[in-house]
Amino acid sequence: MTQAYVEGPMQEYLEDAASNRPAPGGGSVSAMVGALGMTMAEMALNFTIGKKKFVEVEEKAKALLSAISEARATCQACVDRDVSAYGEVSAAYGMPRATDEEKKARTAAIQSALKTAMQPPLDTFRAVAGVMQAIRDCVDVANPNLISDVGVAAIHARAALEGARLNVEINLAYLKDSDLVAAVRDEIEKESNRALKLAEETHRLVTCRVAGGE
Amino acid sequence: MTQAYVEGPMQEYLEDAASNRPAPGGGSVSAMVGALGMTMAEMALNFTIGKKKFVEVEEKAKALLSAISEARATCQACVDRDVSAYGEVSAAYGMPRATDEEKKARTAAIQSALKTAMQPPLDTFRAVAGVMQAIRDCVDVANPNLISDVGVAAIHARAALEGARLNVEINLAYLKDSDLVAAVRDEIEKESNRALKLAEETHRLVTCRVAGGE
Repeated sequence: MTQAYVEGPMQEYLEDAASNRPAPGGGSVSAMVGALGMTMAEMALNFTIGKKKFVEVEEKAKALLSAISEARATCQACVDRDVSAYGEVSAAYGMPRATDEEKKARTAAIQSALKTAMQPPLDTFRAVAGVMQAIRDCVDVANPNLISDVGVAAIHARAALEGARLNVEINLAYLKDSDLVAAVRDEIEKESNRALKLAEETHRLVTCRVAGGE
Repeated sequence: MTQAYVEGPMQEYLEDAASNRPAPGGGSVSAMVGALGMTMAEMALNFTIGKKKFVEVEEKAKALLSAISEARATCQACVDRDVSAYGEVSAAYGMPRATDEEKKARTAAIQSALKTAMQPPLDTFRAVAGVMQAIRDCVDVANPNLISDVGVAAIHARAALEGARLNVEINLAYLKDSDLVAAVRDEIEKESNRALKLAEETHRLVTCRVAGGE
């Protein structure tokens, strides 16, 4: 891959993801869903900032937008970083294993590549979890005409979080560094619980408002 | 918009979605998330079909792939159909309303445009709900090496379903055709319950297998 997927046609990314190529896989796709979720909160805030009607929350809206845009940038980068990292894992598994020396080198390379491969979904997870409160705050801050888009942001942020988590876990299952495994498991468990509650709260609040015809 | 978004760079779609343009909005983005979810089930099946090891489930895998690829085609089409339909709603709201005649014409145009605008998210919803059982079946049929991707498919299919539903509901809230509103509400309520259960079951089964290191 010479060109970054985010710079290329969506159609091509979707075709490659669906095909029998190892990548893009679940980590990349979940990063993309995270980026898509963030855009909806950004749009809601961009329809708030600069409008007289919402001048009282302008500073708050700007701060939310800044945090959420940064999370999108991380997710967008992970769309392609995940593809590259996956290539390293494949290369390590393809190493020779005829002698004990080779086996040892291969095992070390696989372990190193798995750690590298875990990083993009972990970064996606952290970026999305880190702005779940900001997305929740959009319910109170953003232009009410875009309330359903805030709900869509929360729904897709949640999916990105869960998809990224699954891709962290698939790497953890093969990693032998037990201290690292325990630390990451602990982090994703705690953060998931916190972030999922916020996503559900946001979704519920939005559904109530939409049902009321605003 | 002259070019379809799915044919253009992902980066551009994300920027336009995040910006203060009315579209792409939540309906389009949810259709995109649906397409992304489908690709992961397709990939898992494409790593199953044609392999000696899975010859016993080959026919079943092909049938699942065909259904899921069709659902992806519907979602991909809705990425752009949602943008076009939203344009009609904006145009209708922009109609003159100085006289009673004008008001009547504007109201009729808005109601008609809202019905049109509801269709793409409803089609996304139906396409995704229609293959949730197929995605669930991938847990038993697809190559176990891709189990986490089947989980990612279920997670993003669920998000697409919920995001599309919210965009159907925002239109229902303003539609005056009470028979249509009641019929659609009834359909999405029933189908959501069924499809969400399947998505959760799939996610749970995949999480157990991943935790077991397969």
